[in-house]
Amino acid sequence: MPAGEAVNKSVHPFDKDRLDALLNRRFFFAPAFEIYNGVAGLYDYGPPGSSLQANIINEWRKHFVIEEHMLELDTTIMTPSKVFETSGHVARFADWMVKDTKTGEVLRADHLVKGVLEARLAGDREARGKAAQPEKEDDKKKKKKIKTTAVKLEDSVVAEYESVLAQLDNYSGPELGELCRKYTINNPDTGNEVGEPQQFNLMFKSSIGPTGHLPGFLRPETAQGHFLNFSRLLEFNNGRVPFASAHIGKSFRNEISPRAGLMRVREFTMAEIEHYVDPLDKSHERFSEVKDVKMALLDRNTQSGGHTTISHMTIGEAVEKGVIANETLGYFLARVKLFLLKIGIDENRLRFRQHMGNEMAHYATDCWDAEIQSSYGWVECVGCADRAAYDLSVHSEATGHDLKVRQALEEPIIEEKFVPEFNKKVTGKTFGKDFAIIQKVFETLSEEQFAKIKGELAQGGTTISKDGKEFKLTAEHLSIERKTFKKNVREFTPNVIEPSFGLGRILYSLLEHSFWSREQDVERGVLSLPPVVAPTKVLIVPISAKSEFSPLLQEVSSKLRKGGVYSRVDDSNTSIGRRYARNDELGTPFGVTLDFASVKNRTMTLRERDSTDQLIGDIDEVISVVTDLVQGTMDWAEACKRLPAYDGVQAVD
Amino acid sequence: MPAGEAVNKSVHPFDKDRLDALLNRRFFFAPAFEIYNGVAGLYDYGPPGSSLQANIINEWRKHFVIEEHMLELDTTIMTPSKVFETSGHVARFADWMVKDTKTGEVLRADHLVKGVLEARLAGDREARGKAAQPEKEDDKKKKKKIKTTAVKLEDSVVAEYESVLAQLDNYSGPELGELCRKYTINNPDTGNEVGEPQQFNLMFKSSIGPTGHLPGFLRPETAQGHFLNFSRLLEFNNGRVPFASAHIGKSFRNEISPRAGLMRVREFTMAEIEHYVDPLDKSHERFSEVKDVKMALLDRNTQSGGHTTISHMTIGEAVEKGVIANETLGYFLARVKLFLLKIGIDENRLRFRQHMGNEMAHYATDCWDAEIQSSYGWVECVGCADRAAYDLSVHSEATGHDLKVRQALEEPIIEEKFVPEFNKKVTGKTFGKDFAIIQKVFETLSEEQFAKIKGELAQGGTTISKDGKEFKLTAEHLSIERKTFKKNVREFTPNVIEPSFGLGRILYSLLEHSFWSREQDVERGVLSLPPVVAPTKVLIVPISAKSEFSPLLQEVSSKLRKGGVYSRVDDSNTSIGRRYARNDELGTPFGVTLDFASVKNRTMTLRERDSTDQLIGDIDEVISVVTDLVQGTMDWAEACKRLPAYDGVQAVD
Repeated sequence: MPAGEAVNKSVHPFDKDRLDALLNRRFFFAPAFEIYNGVAGLYDYGPPGSSLQANIINEWRKHFVIEEHMLELDTTIMTPSKVFETSGHVARFADWMVKDTKTGEVLRADHLVKGVLEARLAGDREARGKAAQPEKEDDKKKKKKIKTTAVKLEDSVVAEYESVLAQLDNYSGPELGELCRKYTINNPDTGNEVGEPQQFNLMFKSSIGPTGHLPGFLRPETAQGHFLNFSRLLEFNNGRVPFASAHIGKSFRNEISPRAGLMRVREFTMAEIEHYVDPLDKSHERFSEVKDVKMALLDRNTQSGGHTTISHMTIGEAVEKGVIANETLGYFLARVKLFLLKIGIDENRLRFRQHMGNEMAHYATDCWDAEIQSSYGWVECVGCADRAAYDLSVHSEATGHDLKVRQALEEPIIEEKFVPEFNKKVTGKTFGKDFAIIQKVFETLSEEQFAKIKGELAQGGTTISKDGKEFKLTAEHLSIERKTFKKNVREFTPNVIEPSFGLGRILYSLLEHSFWSREQDVERGVLSLPPVVAPTKVLIVPISAKSEFSPLLQEVSSKLRKGGVYSRVDDSNTSIGRRYARNDELGTPFGVTLDFASVKNRTMTLRERDSTDQLIGDIDEVISVVTDLVQGTMDWAEACKRLPAYDGVQAVD
Repeated sequence: MPAGEAVNKSVHPFDKDRLDALLNRRFFFAPAFEIYNGVAGLYDYGPPGSSLQANIINEWRKHFVIEEHMLELDTTIMTPSKVFETSGHVARFADWMVKDTKTGEVLRADHLVKGVLEARLAGDREARGKAAQPEKEDDKKKKKKIKTTAVKLEDSVVAEYESVLAQLDNYSGPELGELCRKYTINNPDTGNEVGEPQQFNLMFKSSIGPTGHLPGFLRPETAQGHFLNFSRLLEFNNGRVPFASAHIGKSFRNEISPRAGLMRVREFTMAEIEHYVDPLDKSHERFSEVKDVKMALLDRNTQSGGHTTISHMTIGEAVEKGVIANETLGYFLARVKLFLLKIGIDENRLRFRQHMGNEMAHYATDCWDAEIQSSYGWVECVGCADRAAYDLSVHSEATGHDLKVRQALEEPIIEEKFVPEFNKKVTGKTFGKDFAIIQKVFETLSEEQFAKIKGELAQGGTTISKDGKEFKLTAEHLSIERKTFKKNVREFTPNVIEPSFGLGRILYSLLEHSFWSREQDVERGVLSLPPVVAPTKVLIVPISAKSEFSPLLQEVSSKLRKGGVYSRVDDSNTSIGRRYARNDELGTPFGVTLDFASVKNRTMTLRERDSTDQLIGDIDEVISVVTDLVQGTMDWAEACKRLPAYDGVQAVD
């Protein structure tokens, strides 16, 4: 029997308040600066939270960086303004906000419109006696419940509201302002009108150095740090593509009024990969390894049709059918899924949603979000975009630094091209310094234009014009020749495929997916975190704090540490059952108990968290089994075959 | 023979330019935003640099957090102003700067005075035909060479300059300004005068949220994040002290004009421990484990005497003699030393320097810096301070949140105390509402005062006064009684002992200590990084890129990965010797070569980086040996016993 299979984890419906209380009580995370009354959108991770985060990062590094030999970076957070001017963030990384005209409270304009209209539609449905529509749970941006009142709306008004909501991401700030006036959308907290929408840039601004003349921003993503180092990375990789850089680090977004726990925060840990690939060849060497991975896809066309029906297919099929743009993007989507399952995300609450045309950054060619379902709805936790050559191109243009790949061609490319052969003496004499202008014009001509001019010259002459001036040329001035060129090197700006992970969102979703309560007592919460990410792997519980257990405690924890297993001792003065209950809340997957029999016979019991089943065996054998369990080379069913069950009279429940 | 023992690593004198070129070429780190011409004091770590950093962090976590069951945190960087108002950073975390009166260039005032006076003293020594004094290398704050000219100074002037330099950390801003005028200290770059010193706060300032009314700072240290969470941490630790919290993360300091590479940067990774301890008992449970660790100490008294002589003694002796204030501080100093040696810092270039009275923060009771010697002099890399109860006290006072420890006393404390027993009726009648004032006065009296009043009452009466009023009391109003009190709980604010690590400084010092050039060719640089921190542990080198090696490459790297050893394959199209030379620069300690014999006989050679010695053996045996070597359970001498030497004709040198 695999661990916990016989355990019914869904007897009690999911209760967010209960989970929140557990996470707070056990200090997974808490509002930062709590004793100073906190600041919205800023959180601190306590010991189990930061350990869980460190383990997720560690697994991420193994799954992506080490497995694929990515080049890891640690780049700077404080960034001079000109970098973000080039990337477009200074101009465009902004949300529209409105102010309550009386209280001055600031609201995000699109969230306000959405919240109020949705509340009215819900009131309408209520008045019509209809149940809430299932689409509601898709509403990932909703943050604060607005009270609904059962008021029936005209059918035409309902249609209008629905149309507004469908296009919400398309409205400009002034249009959002118009909507507020047209539909009398006020601050729902106060009933007051709101002012004109104003743009608010989401980057935290500061100033570098003592002069005050060097504005800087905290990065809102790590991506630019990769791009700026592209030449160095390429050189490190011996000039070859494809390759990827990876970066785990903090980013900052000065959200207008964050109210969704870890799902919308002002400071967060990201893990980003930038995979550089030949724009003409987006195949992936290892695609065959993942081609059979089943994916739950919500594509662009389905959404445009107003549906949220999921298509299930393998990543191989999806790429073959063109649902996903290319192999490399498909490879990463499958790898993202495998990673999320490995750390414990529920497969049934994971889908990949394609961005619609209007949602995508203007430069992206395809973009899919890994969305995880939680009490906040379906929330983007990993974005996977094909950013094309946008970033490298704009930075290259702004700085004059070449960010291209040079590829020696195995077979040189032989090309025949028209070239102008000027009779410099004659042409110089005729046109003086305008000769230079004429030469420039010829540099920009297409093959077709050359062919045409060649024909005209043969028939007496041609006329070219530039900046309003006309130049009449004859065969005396030049001839058009056909010449052969050999190219040994191909130059190109690589395209970038970017999987970008919001670790806090993943961590919180994982906590929701892992949480349940024991059938016999709803107050006994359990976090079924997989051993690979659980903050502590093994709890060592001596039956009492008596000193006769000390040598065994030392021995067991030192042997576990040698096996790479992180354990903790709980020798506090409470019952074994209470100590285990406390560690169920911390997600500790295994427990070993040392009692008087351990001292006498060197036996030890081993408890599995989800089933609370216990086995017993020789201390060294139990250590060997639990090490295998933690490292994932053995499951509980196998452990049950290796060690006899224990049903002694321990107060473990 | 241990690895590399027979190798002479000091044939060529240390050459910083050569090391800098290597670090730049191999992208250990580079100026951030380089293609935008960079920003002083901001650096990006490339693949080997970030891997080295991650390995140092990993070892730090094992050595401190896991070994000692510390409670790890991940707290917020962006901090509301009021937190740093309480901690004192808003008022005091500042340096004095001066501006060049013509160019506006900004200089740090103390660095300017120091640099110019030292250059003059050096010029004087030159003029007197003296060699540079050995003290010069102690100058850890010097950043930019100021040109010296051989000008002899009056003896009295020399004495004056030396006295100024000795007290440099004591001068206020206005005093630094006076010094500039008195000694005509100008900007050495331009020769221009400088203006009056102004205070410049080193915290980066920003604004949180859209209102503009919530100023925030980027933290300059992680410490405050620990202190603000103290109550939660204490609860997590079941209310008991001592315990420690730990935090690894970025901090920010807006340095005035940083010019010392990784030694003085504006954004950096710190690792900080806050160890909470009973102020009445600073012993440490595990002190006996480290008591014999030998320390190189430079204490406060030696320095005040104008000397830099190192005392060598064990940490046990140092604590016993009172050189180091207490066991807990001593324990951490020894553990810091063990950590630094483990990652490869040269023991002979490591010392612990005690802060002098005027150097220490006003609240600290003792403070020692682990200083590492490099081309920048002796630089503080780890600060270990006993911060007493300062931080917890000020935050508790500012917020009204109790940050105390409550300790159930095993034996209740029985105390006899004087208490006033008022005859309420009589006293109330005599004094009306002034009775309350009288009661207040009695609450603040000492035992001595009570005893005196008791005597006076017995002799007729006493007079007490408050706010100019006098009250005459007799035995009718009250009696003073001796009563017994029993206290079951002791309350106290714990003291904090803080080891604080600047990881970038440690990392750079380690690179200097690891760098040398091969005897036969100074251009062949080697970084002798210990396996535990080396970015790559094993380089796998196939003799050619032919596909017949692929299965073996796969096998070897997968077996190494299973053993937890991070390897890389170099199948580039250059000689094996060049591939090894490249990896000597990256600090890769071991290399294995696959050649045709490997395919035929399953043999593989194993190369040690420092000696370039090679062994040969069966592939699986070599994998087992190299795994032990990397994990530190075997040294090269043992490996030489396990496997025969190889002196085949490979072009490895």
